[in-house]
Order: sequence, then C-alpha cells, then structure tokens
Amino acid sequence: MVNEKMYELGSKKSTIREIFEYGRKRAQEVGEENIYDFSLGNPNVPAPSYIKEAVLDIFDTVPTQKIHSYTVAPGNPEVREILAKDINRRFGTHFTKDNLFMTAGAAASISITFKALAEPGDEFVIVAPFFPEYRPFVEATGARLVVVPAQVEDFQINMDLFERALTRHTKGVIVNSPNNPSGAIYSEETIRALSALLLRKEKEYGHPIYIISDEPYREIAYHGYEVPYIPLYYKDTIVCYSYSKSFSLPGERIGYIVIPSEVTGFEKVYSAICGAARVLTHVNAPSLWQLVVARCAGKPTDAEPYRINGELLYQGLIGVGFTCLRPQGAFYLFPKCLEEDDHAFCKRAMKYDLLLVPGTDFGVPGYFRASYCINRDTIKRSLPLFRKLAEEYGVKPGGV
Amino acid sequence: MVNEKMYELGSKKSTIREIFEYGRKRAQEVGEENIYDFSLGNPNVPAPSYIKEAVLDIFDTVPTQKIHSYTVAPGNPEVREILAKDINRRFGTHFTKDNLFMTAGAAASISITFKALAEPGDEFVIVAPFFPEYRPFVEATGARLVVVPAQVEDFQINMDLFERALTRHTKGVIVNSPNNPSGAIYSEETIRALSALLLRKEKEYGHPIYIISDEPYREIAYHGYEVPYIPLYYKDTIVCYSYSKSFSLPGERIGYIVIPSEVTGFEKVYSAICGAARVLTHVNAPSLWQLVVARCAGKPTDAEPYRINGELLYQGLIGVGFTCLRPQGAFYLFPKCLEEDDHAFCKRAMKYDLLLVPGTDFGVPGYFRASYCINRDTIKRSLPLFRKLAEEYGVKPGGV
Repeated sequence: MVNEKMYELGSKKSTIREIFEYGRKRAQEVGEENIYDFSLGNPNVPAPSYIKEAVLDIFDTVPTQKIHSYTVAPGNPEVREILAKDINRRFGTHFTKDNLFMTAGAAASISITFKALAEPGDEFVIVAPFFPEYRPFVEATGARLVVVPAQVEDFQINMDLFERALTRHTKGVIVNSPNNPSGAIYSEETIRALSALLLRKEKEYGHPIYIISDEPYREIAYHGYEVPYIPLYYKDTIVCYSYSKSFSLPGERIGYIVIPSEVTGFEKVYSAICGAARVLTHVNAPSLWQLVVARCAGKPTDAEPYRINGELLYQGLIGVGFTCLRPQGAFYLFPKCLEEDDHAFCKRAMKYDLLLVPGTDFGVPGYFRASYCINRDTIKRSLPLFRKLAEEYGVKPGGV
Repeated sequence: MVNEKMYELGSKKSTIREIFEYGRKRAQEVGEENIYDFSLGNPNVPAPSYIKEAVLDIFDTVPTQKIHSYTVAPGNPEVREILAKDINRRFGTHFTKDNLFMTAGAAASISITFKALAEPGDEFVIVAPFFPEYRPFVEATGARLVVVPAQVEDFQINMDLFERALTRHTKGVIVNSPNNPSGAIYSEETIRALSALLLRKEKEYGHPIYIISDEPYREIAYHGYEVPYIPLYYKDTIVCYSYSKSFSLPGERIGYIVIPSEVTGFEKVYSAICGAARVLTHVNAPSLWQLVVARCAGKPTDAEPYRINGELLYQGLIGVGFTCLRPQGAFYLFPKCLEEDDHAFCKRAMKYDLLLVPGTDFGVPGYFRASYCINRDTIKRSLPLFRKLAEEYGVKPGGV
C-alpha cells in the first residue's frame, strides 16, 4: 500500500526523539523545571539582533517580488558572490559565485552532495562518533556507510584504523568538526595527516576521494581552537555549511555547499549537485533567507553562552568522577558512562530525570551525549543529580 | 566520478529553461522591451500587503526563538490546526492538525507523496498535458509515469482512454486542476466520473488507487469556475498544496499536504510521508513562513490581474486565427500551433521574439504553452506580432 522503507523511516522514532518526547510527557507530570533534558541539539541562544534588522531592512528597501521570487536553482547570484567574498576574506580562498550552491540547511547540503557523488557500490567513510542521520542519507543513495572506530582519548582520527577502512570503493570521507557528538575539533595536525593519507590513496586507486566537510558548528569553537579550512589542505574537498547554529536559524533552512574549482571533475560535480537538488526537490533555498544571510555575512556568532554552559557541565561532571573530553566546540559533551551498557546507564539516569542519549546511537557504545544548548540554570540544578548518579555507581571524584 | 543520472539531470536544461535563457541573452541584444517572453510560470502579481504585515507583526510580537526554531517534522502544530480549520470552513471537511503535513512548496509536496506511496513496479497515471517535472519526480522513486492522451476540445478527461491506462500496478492518479499548461479546470462532472471509475477499479483490483491532487493554482480560477475539492468526492485523495501562486511566494518554499483520515491505511500513509520527507531531507518547512501562512489563512488571492492578462492574450490570439480554450484558471494558455511540428512553430515565433514553449514538453505535440503571468503591456505589444506570425501561415481571423 505504501513504501515499506518510508513507512519504517517515518514511524520508527530515533532514540533522541523518543527521549525528547518522554521528557515532554514527564514534564507534564513533575513540572518543566524538574526535567533535565540534554537530548536535543536545538540552539538556545536566540538569533542575533542583526537578523531581525536585516529582515526589516529587506522588507523596507527591496521590492516585494525581488524578495519572494524563485531564484535560480544554485541560488541568487548576488548572494552567492557576497558569501564567496566573505569566505575568501576569512580563509584566503578564491571562490566566486560559481563555487557556491545555496541550500535549505545542513541536511540538504550533505544529502545533495552524497546523492550527486554516489554510484552503486560506493562507500562513504565516517569516524565514530558521528551524527546518526548520515546513515539514512548515505543509504538512500544506494551507497554504504563505513564506520571507523573512535579514538576515545581525544576524538581525533586514528590514522591506522582509518586507512584500513579505505577501499577502491571509497567515494568520500565525511568530516564533521567541531564534532557532534564529541565536542572535539580536528587539529591542523589531524587534517594534514588525513590529507596526506587520502592523497596517497587517490594516487593508489587512481580516482578522487572527496572529503565532505560538514561544518554547521564551525563558528562554535572555544578557547582559541582554530577549525582548519579543509580546502586549503586537500583539494578534493566539498564544504557543506548551514546557518542553523551560527545564526540560530535552524527552522528557516538555509545554508550552502562550496565546490572549489580545484575539485577533480569540478564541472561534473557542480552539475551533479544541481541534478541531486532537483531530484531531492530542493527547488531553491528559501529566497528571503538567502538575502538575509548575505546581509549578515561575516557577522560574529556569539558562542560564549555555549562555552560557559559547556565548562559548567564539564567541570560539574569531572568533579563528581566522570571522564570526558573538555569541550572544544559544538554544544555537546560525550562522557564515558559509569557502566559498560550505555542504554542501561541512560535508563538509570532517567530516574533522576536526567535525559541523556546513549553513545551507541553515535557509533560509540559505553558513552553518552549531553547537549548543553539549554538553560544554564537547568545545568546548575542538574549537577547534584549527576553526583547522586555517580554515587550509585560508587564513583568518587578523582576517577572512574 | 559522479552519479551519471544526477549529472544528466543537472546539466541537461529543460526546454523551458533554455528558452528563458535564450530570452535573457536576446534581451541584451535588442532590449528588454522587445522580448515577449511567455516561457516561465513565475507569478508577476506581487505578494499581497498582508504578507509583509504578517512578517512585521511576527517579528514584533513573537519571541525570536519561537520564530526560528526547528518545528516538528510535520510542522508547527498550531499552524496546522489553524490551516485545518480554514480548509474546513471553506470545504466543510473535518480535518485537524493530524491531517496536515507542512512542506517546502509544491515540488516537495508531490515528491514526498510519490516517494511515500511508490513501491517497485508501481504506476502513476497523468492526463496530458502535464507539468514535465512529474516525470523525474515519479521516476526517482522507481515507479513509472503512465500518460493518458489529451482531450484537446476541452482538456477535460477522456474516461475511455483513462480507463485503458489503469492496471493492477496503478498506485495513484495525478490530478492538476486548474491545469498547467492547459488553463482548464476539471468540472464537477469530470471529478464525479473520475471518482466513480477509480472506485470501481479499486474494487476490481482490491487495492487503493490514490488521487494525488496537485493544486497550487486552486485560488487562480476565473469566471465563477469552481474548483471541486476532491476529498469530498473520492476518499482516497491526498491534496498537495503550495502558497507559491496564491500568495506569490514561490521563492520561500511553503505549502502542505492534506492526508484525510478516510484515506485507506491513513496511519501508514501519514508515517510514510514523514519517512519520505526525512529521506528527501525536507527537515521542516521554513519556520517563519509556517507562521506567516497561518496568519494569512483565508485571505483572498487577487487573481484578477491574471484573468485580465489571460483574456487579453486569448482574445488577441483568437482574433488573428488561433484556436485555444478560453482561460478558466492558472496563468497559462495552451493554443494549437499553426503547423503540426510544435518545435518548428515555436522556432518560427522566435523570429518575432515571441518565446513560447512547445506542447511536446507537456505531452501534447502540435500545441504550445504561453504563460501570461507577465507585464500586461508586453502582452499588448505582442499581439501585432502574433498577427504577423499567423499571416506567415496564411491564417485569417475566423479559423485555422
């Protein structure tokens, strides 16, 4: 009657979604303030005031039809030119409008890229932990997702394990730094090593291996961490960007893909991206929001509230005996559970109304994700509960 | 290196696109005012003033985060409830928020529906003339598009030919009324006959046949023509709607799907639609625009400028000897060419800088489409050129 796969994808809720919905129900029973929901990655810093100013100015100065008309499929050429110049200013690149393709946010950016590149039998490689939606997006193209085990000490890439995951079928490598869920940022050293390895493998296999750099968290980086701009290190890099986090506009669906001219088969790749967007029925990125992001190009992201939240939760968890990477960016902590079974651990945390997501969902059993893009007071009030939880496991400050 | 099918879809321009781009180039040579571009279906009536008022009011009264946050995948529940009530008010239906799924416009609405329903081997039936993008959307699901020849006298449905197109593999029937490109509106009689036929076939085959009613032009209906609301006639109807034309917001990508509770397998169909939207990476319909269309629910569409344009062009063409259905709705005329070969005819028209789209693209050779959603003065100034064109063919007013 219906497509069974679509039915399954639509009716089987993700673990994150289930936890979130449990939290909504539980909030009605015990009160909103008694739920410590660390499940969702929904930015809680409001969109900066320059967004509203840009919208009002556009409605004030731009003729109605120029705001709301279809744009060409790759996006308003003037918008693309402005964004290309802003990227060039920041990273010393030489992009023009012809290197950009405007999209309806990160999910569109990456799925269009996978769909454009994937041929039957292809493989895309990802290092754990990773955003779970990569899997349905890759598999929808008929390609296979190949997972490299995590290097849990620092959540950089274990190059030996990584090399073993590469085959003649490797079409692309997904890089997501700052990382959801680990909160790690790949160092320049990691990017250099990765680039050198892939360059060697490209030569060995005689075909390009594309890096798909999914970087919606680029602007959320702390403590002076730099996020290397991968096209500067590796020519076959396609950058997928979204304004969901940097401008706190997740509902508006606006982002872009950068296809550098240096990419192997540039013209074919760009055309295939146009074709993939067409088949995925992303007719054009929302036209008002194209104008808005162009007006706000280069404006700063206020990551400070996330940094403060992250430090608060990190210090709180460390203080009661958890082990965890100190947050470098994005707005997630990925600590070790206090027992091997992460599902059991998260279930136990639920007794305290601490809603955490099991690491298995991100490809790393024994860990959990805590999103700290939530009310700071909620984080503060959660800390004694984390202490109680740790005490249940007989864990004392100073080590697991 | 890339997916060849995506490359082809992205690099092979549609005829409409090619004609439009030719027009842009030619305009640089001979001046914008000397190009009579009837190729594109881009609404030229600006968005009504209530749209801007709604946007300003939302930014004035709604907290920033409520405007820009992710909504749940089916869309903001309050928005869906408001839209359901407005549909109920107009058509006497009994929908709730649970019957609506907000989308990023018409292309998203129909492609999500095809993807949700289509199983391998399925067929979707369409009556010519038809919007050419249905084909890639249907074929992307692995299903097959089956075309019923046009009934050119009135562009209603020839039920005998239609019945012959139905098989046990028929999963759905696409209805697009007011029609792009014919400008016809299916009468209540047509809808009743279609419903009766499909009901009989459902029984014969023992499985549902869904009508997918693609109705972005619903509000653009002239001369008192009513557009029957198909769920009132046939229970297995899924309605795909878009605000692109009614509110002149094509670039913003906002619309919805109605899945009536009466639809066979309602819950499975609704879930499959959620799954299809996920795979097509339509995360949620743009959140600001969800709020805007809710505030503007039930506000009138000003179709009068289109009606006047349509009459002007229609009378002009008839007056110099063309045959054509008098426009009933949408903003297209679909006249008979003055020679059998529609491509040759459109090429000949180009000599006068009249840019028309061959009917072959819409499944009806020997006809052409003229979009009249353009400047009225352009239409006026085009009429002497149509006269010259007709004279070339030796056609005199009064008949072909």
